[in-house]
Amino acid sequence: MTKQPTALDLPMVDPLPDDTQKYFDICQEKLGLIPNVLQAYAFDIDKLNAFTALYNDTMLADSGLSKLEREMIAVTVSSINKCYYCLTAHGAAVRALSGNPELGEMLVMNWRVADLDARQTAMLTFAEKVTTESAKVIEQDRDALRQVGFSDRDIWDIAAVTGFYNMSNRIASATDMRPNAEYHAQAR
Amino acid sequence: MTKQPTALDLPMVDPLPDDTQKYFDICQEKLGLIPNVLQAYAFDIDKLNAFTALYNDTMLADSGLSKLEREMIAVTVSSINKCYYCLTAHGAAVRALSGNPELGEMLVMNWRVADLDARQTAMLTFAEKVTTESAKVIEQDRDALRQVGFSDRDIWDIAAVTGFYNMSNRIASATDMRPNAEYHAQAR
Amino acid sequence: MTKQPTALDLPMVDPLPDDTQKYFDICQEKLGLIPNVLQAYAFDIDKLNAFTALYNDTMLADSGLSKLEREMIAVTVSSINKCYYCLTAHGAAVRALSGNPELGEMLVMNWRVADLDARQTAMLTFAEKVTTESAKVIEQDRDALRQVGFSDRDIWDIAAVTGFYNMSNRIASATDMRPNAEYHAQAR
Amino acid sequence: MTKQPTALDLPMVDPLPDDTQKYFDICQEKLGLIPNVLQAYAFDIDKLNAFTALYNDTMLADSGLSKLEREMIAVTVSSINKCYYCLTAHGAAVRALSGNPELGEMLVMNWRVADLDARQTAMLTFAEKVTTESAKVIEQDRDALRQVGFSDRDIWDIAAVTGFYNMSNRIASATDMRPNAEYHAQAR
Amino acid sequence: MTKQPTALDLPMVDPLPDDTQKYFDICQEKLGLIPNVLQAYAFDIDKLNAFTALYNDTMLADSGLSKLEREMIAVTVSSINKCYYCLTAHGAAVRALSGNPELGEMLVMNWRVADLDARQTAMLTFAEKVTTESAKVIEQDRDALRQVGFSDRDIWDIAAVTGFYNMSNRIASATDMRPNAEYHAQAR
Amino acid sequence: MTKQPTALDLPMVDPLPDDTQKYFDICQEKLGLIPNVLQAYAFDIDKLNAFTALYNDTMLADSGLSKLEREMIAVTVSSINKCYYCLTAHGAAVRALSGNPELGEMLVMNWRVADLDARQTAMLTFAEKVTTESAKVIEQDRDALRQVGFSDRDIWDIAAVTGFYNMSNRIASATDMRPNAEYHAQAR
Repeated sequence: MTKQPTALDLPMVDPLPDDTQKYFDICQEKLGLIPNVLQAYAFDIDKLNAFTALYNDTMLADSGLSKLEREMIAVTVSSINKCYYCLTAHGAAVRALSGNPELGEMLVMNWRVADLDARQTAMLTFAEKVTTESAKVIEQDRDALRQVGFSDRDIWDIAAVTGFYNMSNRIASATDMRPNAEYHAQAR
Repeated sequence: MTKQPTALDLPMVDPLPDDTQKYFDICQEKLGLIPNVLQAYAFDIDKLNAFTALYNDTMLADSGLSKLEREMIAVTVSSINKCYYCLTAHGAAVRALSGNPELGEMLVMNWRVADLDARQTAMLTFAEKVTTESAKVIEQDRDALRQVGFSDRDIWDIAAVTGFYNMSNRIASATDMRPNAEYHAQAR
Repeated sequence: MTKQPTALDLPMVDPLPDDTQKYFDICQEKLGLIPNVLQAYAFDIDKLNAFTALYNDTMLADSGLSKLEREMIAVTVSSINKCYYCLTAHGAAVRALSGNPELGEMLVMNWRVADLDARQTAMLTFAEKVTTESAKVIEQDRDALRQVGFSDRDIWDIAAVTGFYNMSNRIASATDMRPNAEYHAQAR
Repeated sequence: MTKQPTALDLPMVDPLPDDTQKYFDICQEKLGLIPNVLQAYAFDIDKLNAFTALYNDTMLADSGLSKLEREMIAVTVSSINKCYYCLTAHGAAVRALSGNPELGEMLVMNWRVADLDARQTAMLTFAEKVTTESAKVIEQDRDALRQVGFSDRDIWDIAAVTGFYNMSNRIASATDMRPNAEYHAQAR
Repeated sequence: MTKQPTALDLPMVDPLPDDTQKYFDICQEKLGLIPNVLQAYAFDIDKLNAFTALYNDTMLADSGLSKLEREMIAVTVSSINKCYYCLTAHGAAVRALSGNPELGEMLVMNWRVADLDARQTAMLTFAEKVTTESAKVIEQDRDALRQVGFSDRDIWDIAAVTGFYNMSNRIASATDMRPNAEYHAQAR
Repeated sequence: MTKQPTALDLPMVDPLPDDTQKYFDICQEKLGLIPNVLQAYAFDIDKLNAFTALYNDTMLADSGLSKLEREMIAVTVSSINKCYYCLTAHGAAVRALSGNPELGEMLVMNWRVADLDARQTAMLTFAEKVTTESAKVIEQDRDALRQVGFSDRDIWDIAAVTGFYNMSNRIASATDMRPNAEYHAQAR
């Protein structure tokens, strides 16, 4: 925790507020690490809290999308944007949640080689279009999701996860954010 | 408020919780409208609150960037992504905050035609690169910001605003979110 | 008329030939302004006349396309090319001719959000393809226009208007041509 | 002259007006052919005349650019846009005017391999940028032309020729215009 | 053979081994020239032999693709990559093998204008996709080839020829390899 | 060895010629696997031998580039082209040869985040340009390599390795070639 997690000289608030310290302690205990993205935001506790709240709602709240599916979108978007931080952290998450290390590698490298069913293919096709040419999304694209069983609420969630990583990929790359080294060997 | 603000069938919670209703009433009173983006999120109050908290921190909290500068980034990013919702709402904000209707139009149409000083040119140059090819950002790009006087904290904020609109542009376009009609004639 | 309408030092012929002066006087009387593009060309009367003749034939002569439709193509092409001059001048024309300010804004920002019928959707789809990847146009693209009722003569006119703005967008951007300030507030 | 020069069913006016017939006769006599582009426009004599007037002014009127230089721009632009008609007709023109068949081939295939002086390199660099990303042209690009000796009037002409072929490339490709077969073997 | 065939200072082995000299003599006798690509590789005989063996197998061995079809792929790929060396040498080969000079020109300039049957259209459509976005190739693309009669072995060969020119185009452009002047006038 | 290594139905020659069988046995003994790319080519022994000879010369022969540097180019090129086969196989090679698992990951994900010296930065910058826009390579690009100490022979080798993977990436993706599963866990 002494080395800066980004290329910017923005040290963490010291000491951290009690709530933040407690949150970081839980991370350390449960994950074996405090994700660098949290340390990066901890120069300003309001920003840390706002980011964390949106992250938790997007990735962990109830949804028609499983947690694995949300991580699959995260990695697919991050692969298009070539974000080292997010590919490392969320690639590990896909490997762990799926119990399928090759799936994590495939999504990092080229999602089209993964052996996906119609639902997940439609989901990632939409996420890719929203990432690369969002202005061209039309009703037909949403209907393609409905046709494989996604509800309008699910479509919102696919859009929200896709949007979230298009934000965090850019913040990470713009600041040269580095992932915790522990991710690399996880769930191989 | 009876027409859906997006192409998705996601009606607002009814009745709205007291806090949310109060917030919407304040919007109506101060802005003369309740931004459709808030109505769009109001199918799920946790999501609304998470989005609003991050928006308020990003656009309104203390920063080395003025509110106008943050709106200028918002419009520049939205122009690259061709997001109708954000161009309409934030184009109006630039017109209003700057008192310069042409500036708002220029940023909507092509930011390079605007007559900007070195600081703002560097800021939008960085925002553009982070939007279109974030994986190619290198230390030299951050140094270009430092050379026109931005602090590392300011660089974080430029990255954060740029990231935020790369998220919200995509959520808006993916769901066909429509801006309130009132924006079009404001501050012309 | 004393400030140069472009970044090039190319003053108007002085005095203007009688015919040109008369044409400019008519513009002033009917439009309330002399379009800067005409002033820009007026350093060479032969060039002004050749440009004006092609413009008038393309945009005003008899055609299966209405004047509004031709302006819609003009704005759609100019949005792809991000031409400040043409978006400003022809965006105003779409607002005025359609009596629908939002339509003008939509075409400036992202034509796909406009609520168009099959004919106009096909027309702008073709104009977009001719603008961005003309070498890939094949017979199937022309047939898509025929299927919504366009004649071969109409197809020529769509191609000609699309081509014209791909020319004038580039001349305007290459010379930093600036629109008359009056356009911004028109027909809002 | 019996086969349509484009994929559109737009027969020439029959009989042609005397002036047009005379112009075509001169073409036949001097060039050994009537360029198909003229035959393509001859379904409407006003359009033919407007196109011809702009073509002649752009390519043949007095200019600081030689006729060969204007043809070099024509071929470079047409190579970027992959326009079969214009590459064939103007590739032949570069071969003939330069007396250097390889130069014509190089500009058709990849202008960067041609052995050009600083002036012509700057000219084609500008034409390429105006063709592919006109919205990014800034004063520095015009200054690069001034530094190799181009006047502001010359810069206008480079922009005008570049713009012209960005128009005619698109009209030709949109209508599947075919070049006269005679061009292929000329000046090899 | 005294001038370097590339921008690199890599003279041929001198004297050439007997086998190589004999091979070059045969080229001179049969083709009237020693292709510069062979002279370029001849600074290292192992590299020359490895390149030549793969070239000969790819372009000349038994295949369900005719030699002309393989040359058509070569030119189409080289047109996308704008490789001067390969367009010149293989453009001449298409002209010669087809007896149709216009076909060679069309493939150099824009393969879509060539009047091809369904088989060759499918073949070049696949070669184009493999060249420009190979990561997006899916089973459906291979099936499109099977549907016009290509066997799996033929599909391999289309991929192999396409791959080969994506290699040699890049080596040629990276080293500024120049074609023998004799190609330009051949088979016009 | 019973499952096809690609999506094409092209079984290996059976039995394999003695030389080939011996080569495969050596692979099995030394690498613990027979690379699927060799099994894919083994439907035609001449093709297998031609590919293998070029591969061995390119990647293993004497060169001013180390074997690790050649693998670094392989992975960088394959990352741009998003080739699953080559990223998996050569990503493992970078991890193994460098003893630095993170370096392998960085090159797979985004080479710009790797902490490289001036020589290797120049090498990958050139490889990237040759991969994405080879037609724009000019003498200045080669000079940038010379300035960090590369000889003309080294430049050839950088071009050759870059070219080779632009070939093999495309053949692999066009045929849906799958890497041996063993690579994933190697050298983590």
